[in-house]
Amino acid sequence: MTVMPKTLHVNLFEMACVSHIVHGMWRAPENARLRFGELSFWTDLASRAETAGIEAIFLADVLGVYDRFGGLEPALRTGMQIPNLDPFSVVPAMAAVTTHLNFAVTASTTYEPPFAFARRISSLDMLTNGRVGWNVVTSYLPNAARNFGLENEIEHDARYERADEYIEVLYKLWEGSWADDAWRGDTIDNVVTAYDRVRRINHQGQYFSVEGPHLLPPTRQRTPVLFQASGSERGLQTAARHAEAVFIGGRTPHETKENIERTRAAAQACGRAPQDLKFYVMAGLIVGKTEQEARAKLERYRKFYDVEGALSHAQSEIDLRAVDPELTIAEALAETGTSFGNMGRRFGKDQKVGAALEQISRFDEGRYFAVGTPAQIADSIEEWLDIDGIDGINLRQYHSFETLNDYADFIAPELRKRGRLPPFPCRPSSFRARLFGHDRVSNRHPAHSYSFEARSS
Amino acid sequence: MTVMPKTLHVNLFEMACVSHIVHGMWRAPENARLRFGELSFWTDLASRAETAGIEAIFLADVLGVYDRFGGLEPALRTGMQIPNLDPFSVVPAMAAVTTHLNFAVTASTTYEPPFAFARRISSLDMLTNGRVGWNVVTSYLPNAARNFGLENEIEHDARYERADEYIEVLYKLWEGSWADDAWRGDTIDNVVTAYDRVRRINHQGQYFSVEGPHLLPPTRQRTPVLFQASGSERGLQTAARHAEAVFIGGRTPHETKENIERTRAAAQACGRAPQDLKFYVMAGLIVGKTEQEARAKLERYRKFYDVEGALSHAQSEIDLRAVDPELTIAEALAETGTSFGNMGRRFGKDQKVGAALEQISRFDEGRYFAVGTPAQIADSIEEWLDIDGIDGINLRQYHSFETLNDYADFIAPELRKRGRLPPFPCRPSSFRARLFGHDRVSNRHPAHSYSFEARSS
Repeated sequence: MTVMPKTLHVNLFEMACVSHIVHGMWRAPENARLRFGELSFWTDLASRAETAGIEAIFLADVLGVYDRFGGLEPALRTGMQIPNLDPFSVVPAMAAVTTHLNFAVTASTTYEPPFAFARRISSLDMLTNGRVGWNVVTSYLPNAARNFGLENEIEHDARYERADEYIEVLYKLWEGSWADDAWRGDTIDNVVTAYDRVRRINHQGQYFSVEGPHLLPPTRQRTPVLFQASGSERGLQTAARHAEAVFIGGRTPHETKENIERTRAAAQACGRAPQDLKFYVMAGLIVGKTEQEARAKLERYRKFYDVEGALSHAQSEIDLRAVDPELTIAEALAETGTSFGNMGRRFGKDQKVGAALEQISRFDEGRYFAVGTPAQIADSIEEWLDIDGIDGINLRQYHSFETLNDYADFIAPELRKRGRLPPFPCRPSSFRARLFGHDRVSNRHPAHSYSFEARSS
Repeated sequence: MTVMPKTLHVNLFEMACVSHIVHGMWRAPENARLRFGELSFWTDLASRAETAGIEAIFLADVLGVYDRFGGLEPALRTGMQIPNLDPFSVVPAMAAVTTHLNFAVTASTTYEPPFAFARRISSLDMLTNGRVGWNVVTSYLPNAARNFGLENEIEHDARYERADEYIEVLYKLWEGSWADDAWRGDTIDNVVTAYDRVRRINHQGQYFSVEGPHLLPPTRQRTPVLFQASGSERGLQTAARHAEAVFIGGRTPHETKENIERTRAAAQACGRAPQDLKFYVMAGLIVGKTEQEARAKLERYRKFYDVEGALSHAQSEIDLRAVDPELTIAEALAETGTSFGNMGRRFGKDQKVGAALEQISRFDEGRYFAVGTPAQIADSIEEWLDIDGIDGINLRQYHSFETLNDYADFIAPELRKRGRLPPFPCRPSSFRARLFGHDRVSNRHPAHSYSFEARSS
């Protein structure tokens, strides 16, 4: 019996801004990032991605500025996620020039009311015939909170409680408000919608009160594919209950495997099955026809590296560049009485400041970073799939559109040769069907319990 | 000296739904309205509109169901504005296939926070290079209020107070947060944005508290072209202060002229000039090569007329069909103890019920309705321009895409021959420049007082 090898799901990691995660690279020759505000940037990107067999464009988003490190200046100067466009504004244009490329859009549960958001996603899912995912975030920038009338960010666990109710409202609208056969469009009997197959949701909760009905009939997927990161303990609970695609990290295969297993176990405790979840890591791939060529490309990229953008992104309160490089991070923080923002996720506290700075500027993402020939990169990816147990990657872009073109020209063909990519070109399908083989949420998923049919019986 | 005749600004009146204003017509042969959920409907519509020289697609919107007349049933059965898509979801796709078509999008000031909305509009204005307008509404459907956590709609005047502050927040973000020269994209000096040319807005008001900065640099227009209807007295005040394009109605030339003069006078009292405002009416045009052909088309259309959709749209509490047609509307309401919803705007209370029903079903919109040859229709339009004093129309669509094609093939050529349309094809331009000759708000407009430069000096 031939066992089919596990295939890789590939999202292109994007954000509608100049500098998303690899700061400084916008200055590299031929990098198109300064065109992020032009429609043609997005239609070009989508066409190339579809041709390359990329499964989805994954769009990050923030609703404020990273201003903890040095105020507004570093983020503004380096284009670090500001300016940024509403990710929903670029998807319809990309959808119009593609037929099976999918789109995962980040949106927060914290600041905007669920009713309008439900229609926003359903509109995209309808117009794309089911090519939409939602990356659920609760937002963490203090400036974002202050842009929405809050003195400061809502406390972490309370954000997740609110998120849980927000998502419940969405399920009621997406799954429970319209029956599958409600939409008729029947010119003979003169019925657009069968009124008795639509109902109000009458949600009355702690945070929200929403009458309904939903403003759109069931789309191909009803609920979009749900993406989530499982960083914190409370975040893990929400991901285990709701997420179909989970972002995880890990510095070693062991750590990643453990994170995956822990999340799968938590999902099973919620009545879900292990195969109901896919796991993604962010990965950096730098390819050349020879290893030397790949390493030369990496060196070329590194010249543009902008540490200020990285410190701003990290929300660090401390300027590592002004600290004795021989101190450990813990010592440096103690000495200055500051906190280290998100950098803590990336470095051990007993790592030396100089080494940490050096590590950032090497573009080194640890385990999920491969530089070399197509074969070397494919070897790494096969390990990630088979040893670490991941299902997919969010492909980090160093250079637009060089990273995408490199993937198309060198990496995808090698992976395809090894049977490590899903068949392509593929038949038109929903995003969820590409991942799980079915258009709608699994009947073990909590959304399913809100279905019109389930509630009617 | 030759005086150039006044030219007509033409918006195509649209809504992302099956039945927007002419209820029942979706059943007419070849009507494409059941395709409203497909991207190709919108890209086809936009391409045709641009080719026809239509200046803008005007997108209406509601955030709930019209349920006062008979609950959900009539609206659902007739497709009367439900289902409906988020209008923002169709604009980027239409923008991607056009180069100078403009888009006016309806959005309410009542339910969603201003910060995200500011970015939403700026994203469109940036991606389209200035082809965006905003139709400011405060929402009036009770169901919409209940979809956003309110027991019932906010009282009318309070909605407008909130709207005024909402708009003020937007001006601060659009006009005052980024200087014109803030965006650099300078690869030599390594500066994406000049940080000292951007500032937070620190708005603290009665309804909103918003820190900023805005998430996007100045777009071509900064503030989108502001559309508003001036129905009520309080609405008129808001329109007089903010609106650059005002919807008005009138049953006679005199009434229209009076509405225009009253709004212009109110605008002047706010320090604005008469030429700072354009006035639009909704108009229905049914054309044929001969008058007979046009009247036959009207008769053909009328066969599809659905009175239930119209009563639902009117939010009538009374079913006129069940009332003695010889009663006046006032008598019928008194007898049944009901109210007449929006129908009051259309009919006098001393009109007879039978006559009112008959008037609705004739598709007769009164003064701004013309049926006939291209020359007859152009004659009517010339009267509207020269006698009534209007500047533009929202073209009511009876049939998609027959109405648009008829406009393109018959009406536009006749108007162009008479010098009654702006030059076409036109140079790429912003929406505001098409209307007023300049990209940014006039310096007499209240938005101008929030400009970065004004506040710095």
